[in-house]
Amino acid sequence: MPQKVVIVGAGPVGSLAALYAAVRGHEVEIYELRSDLRSPEITQNISQSINLALSERGIHSLRQTGLPDLADAVLKETFPMHGRMIHVRKQGKYVRQSQAYDARGRSLLAMDRTGLNQTLLDHLDAMQNVRFFFHRKLVSVDFRQRLAWFENRTKNDPAKSDDIEVPFDLMIGADGAHSAVRYHLMKFVPMSYQQEYIDKLWCQFHVPPTADGDYRIPPNYLHIWPQDDAMFIALPNLDKSFTSTLFLPRSGFEHLVASGKVVEYFDEKFPGVVPDLITDEQLRKQFNEHDHLPLISIKCSPYHYGSTGVIIGDAAHAMVPFYGQGMNAGLEDVRVLFEFLDRYPNDQAKALTEYSKQRTPDAQTINDLALGNYREMASDVKKPLYLLRKWLEEKLYLYIPNAGWATQYSRVTFSNMRYSEVQDAASRQARILNGVVCVVALSFIGSAFWLTRTGGVQQAKKGLLRSICLVAQQAQKLTQG
Amino acid sequence: MPQKVVIVGAGPVGSLAALYAAVRGHEVEIYELRSDLRSPEITQNISQSINLALSERGIHSLRQTGLPDLADAVLKETFPMHGRMIHVRKQGKYVRQSQAYDARGRSLLAMDRTGLNQTLLDHLDAMQNVRFFFHRKLVSVDFRQRLAWFENRTKNDPAKSDDIEVPFDLMIGADGAHSAVRYHLMKFVPMSYQQEYIDKLWCQFHVPPTADGDYRIPPNYLHIWPQDDAMFIALPNLDKSFTSTLFLPRSGFEHLVASGKVVEYFDEKFPGVVPDLITDEQLRKQFNEHDHLPLISIKCSPYHYGSTGVIIGDAAHAMVPFYGQGMNAGLEDVRVLFEFLDRYPNDQAKALTEYSKQRTPDAQTINDLALGNYREMASDVKKPLYLLRKWLEEKLYLYIPNAGWATQYSRVTFSNMRYSEVQDAASRQARILNGVVCVVALSFIGSAFWLTRTGGVQQAKKGLLRSICLVAQQAQKLTQG
Repeated sequence: MPQKVVIVGAGPVGSLAALYAAVRGHEVEIYELRSDLRSPEITQNISQSINLALSERGIHSLRQTGLPDLADAVLKETFPMHGRMIHVRKQGKYVRQSQAYDARGRSLLAMDRTGLNQTLLDHLDAMQNVRFFFHRKLVSVDFRQRLAWFENRTKNDPAKSDDIEVPFDLMIGADGAHSAVRYHLMKFVPMSYQQEYIDKLWCQFHVPPTADGDYRIPPNYLHIWPQDDAMFIALPNLDKSFTSTLFLPRSGFEHLVASGKVVEYFDEKFPGVVPDLITDEQLRKQFNEHDHLPLISIKCSPYHYGSTGVIIGDAAHAMVPFYGQGMNAGLEDVRVLFEFLDRYPNDQAKALTEYSKQRTPDAQTINDLALGNYREMASDVKKPLYLLRKWLEEKLYLYIPNAGWATQYSRVTFSNMRYSEVQDAASRQARILNGVVCVVALSFIGSAFWLTRTGGVQQAKKGLLRSICLVAQQAQKLTQG
Repeated sequence: MPQKVVIVGAGPVGSLAALYAAVRGHEVEIYELRSDLRSPEITQNISQSINLALSERGIHSLRQTGLPDLADAVLKETFPMHGRMIHVRKQGKYVRQSQAYDARGRSLLAMDRTGLNQTLLDHLDAMQNVRFFFHRKLVSVDFRQRLAWFENRTKNDPAKSDDIEVPFDLMIGADGAHSAVRYHLMKFVPMSYQQEYIDKLWCQFHVPPTADGDYRIPPNYLHIWPQDDAMFIALPNLDKSFTSTLFLPRSGFEHLVASGKVVEYFDEKFPGVVPDLITDEQLRKQFNEHDHLPLISIKCSPYHYGSTGVIIGDAAHAMVPFYGQGMNAGLEDVRVLFEFLDRYPNDQAKALTEYSKQRTPDAQTINDLALGNYREMASDVKKPLYLLRKWLEEKLYLYIPNAGWATQYSRVTFSNMRYSEVQDAASRQARILNGVVCVVALSFIGSAFWLTRTGGVQQAKKGLLRSICLVAQQAQKLTQG
């Protein structure tokens, strides 16, 4: 039965939700506080977003709309990153090391948030049953009476703005970390809610193409300068530029602002950035002019009230950007939400309840993983032990695929397995891996012994690997049984 | 230097803050969403509050205003509770047991929230530099420009309400758990924030005096019917009635609503309530008519922005009611806040920063203690081991006062020691007490031996106690040194 679906927030998650609703024949209205980002005066100005890494969950959710060309239109504007490239100094020398994301060669896709958003809005424009309202601020909601009030901010005199009353059957709040829908939802449902600002601020930098119009560093990587407390990263854009981000504790930013020594700081910490990627003048200018922004992490539960209201995306679970999953999780919210709405067509309250119940542990898991992944990106990637473990995990992944072995990273990034199940599987595998590491030690001794007797180094390596895989396979069968 | 101080919320905490500010000569304005609770149409209707237990921190904060008669005017309307009275069934028989709150005879003071509030408002009325604005809803705040906007809700047509703009030097938010000041403060300061609804709802009941106008049960107690998952309590009022509260998990309320068997439930769980305190008809009626309300627990940090905004009371740290400290902590906030403002008269930003820094761990401690104290009230009070420990702690308290020994309960309730220091001291004492318990066991054996030889029971008991105290004193000296 067609319903009036009101969506608050015309970002990528809200827009995708509008598409899912529109495809099902509902009457859809989208309310957005800001201007249409496709309007000419806006397009120049959009920069306050960390670049996105689109991965399987996001792509899958785009495909599941049922619109045949949507995912392809989005994918056309992405740029593949096969792995990380780590930039460090070792014994005083500047070294770059690449680390593939996936033993089977799959990539992350760098993309521009605005581009994705535009593609989604363009597809919405083509639908008869969708209407946009920009410059509308949500003032109040009554989820029992199914009425919302929006302030019209297009008027010149803000004091004289008049509120409009909007009836709805279902309100979907996709209005970001500082969600107004969530704020009003809390008045109707006892919601557990937690927000935390981590002690990192971020500042964005633009790295232009070279004079001949080429990338300044190898483009098919997510570049990382890991410095433990601080981190600098760069993601490629289609126009041969990079978008870079500096992460630093608040005190670090304050120190750099006070001392003015940002170039000196970069010289010391981030080799190869100044002047190869950005001139000292540009670095100083952008550091001073661009915002130094906080990072918030939000958990809450439940996400819905009755049959009439639900929050998705950052409104429900804003996360720090270190796993590259914020947007992907938001797009996946839309797919999962509409799966439940489709499953209970005559009981929307049940659909929303089940959605909250299933999605809460998943969102909280990826939220925690994202917090934990800062350490991996900014510290662990430099460490030999991390690299050894990564190598071992990837080998196991390649050699025993049928037993369902995969790294946590690969399950998060390249599969649609529920986040909470990813974590369960990862814990199980970690136990096995610890066992394996013991066996490796033993095998090493055995192999070394065998090697000295036969002289066949290649065969020794193969034998070693084979024995590791056999043990891991056995261990996994045991823990599954 | 006199300032314009705007206080949001005219409850007890906001009113006391207004008094502290007014006494210092500031220009004070109080904005309150609701009506003046002294207006005739309101007075009939106020019941949605758990009765208060006023204790040392609250009284001390009232005294520190500098208004000589304020504390006495409040104390006149209180009723002392010397201890708990526990109502249980033992081997099928209804038993009452009293447990004193304090080994030195100090009492909690039962009082009516509205009465306290009225007394404070009356004192504010007498000040020249205080102005009240009721029916004003905080719409927006700019803590940088020091401007607030309030909606005037006294008009008949809510659509035509016009906002008023209010400048201020300092805004104090005392607007409760669902604080609008906190909501706007969050837009100016990166605030860690956590709210949690515990799985208990509460419902209030009125227990009238007897036909001869007397109390139905001994009045000088906080009465508890502890049933682990459920709890019923009763606090005396000056008019010889009691205010009772039922605490029960949400599912329990739902079950009683669905089955209608609330009288049967009380008969089974809470002996002596129906019909001695309340008739079955009244119990059913009040259970159906009174709200079943949730309990929220809130932590956040920091409490302030720059030199212009600060939140206090429930707005900063709403807690569950099981330690009887919510209001007392809120009143103490006022005293501590103004101590810092007095200490740094020329640097208000510093004063607010120091206030946040000192008060955050204290508020979070009492918040946690309150959550933990449900178990003590609803379960532990029935258990012999709890009573033994309580007895031992109180004896130590009486016999070694100079060494600064006191129970956690007595420090929270009868002192002004910082909550966080109470907890530190309590952990230290717990370690000692565990040692003492070992020594008690040994002493028992020794005493029993001595007893059999001399036949002096009284002397044996004294000797036992003396040796316990000696050991405890030694242990405490050791851990302090």
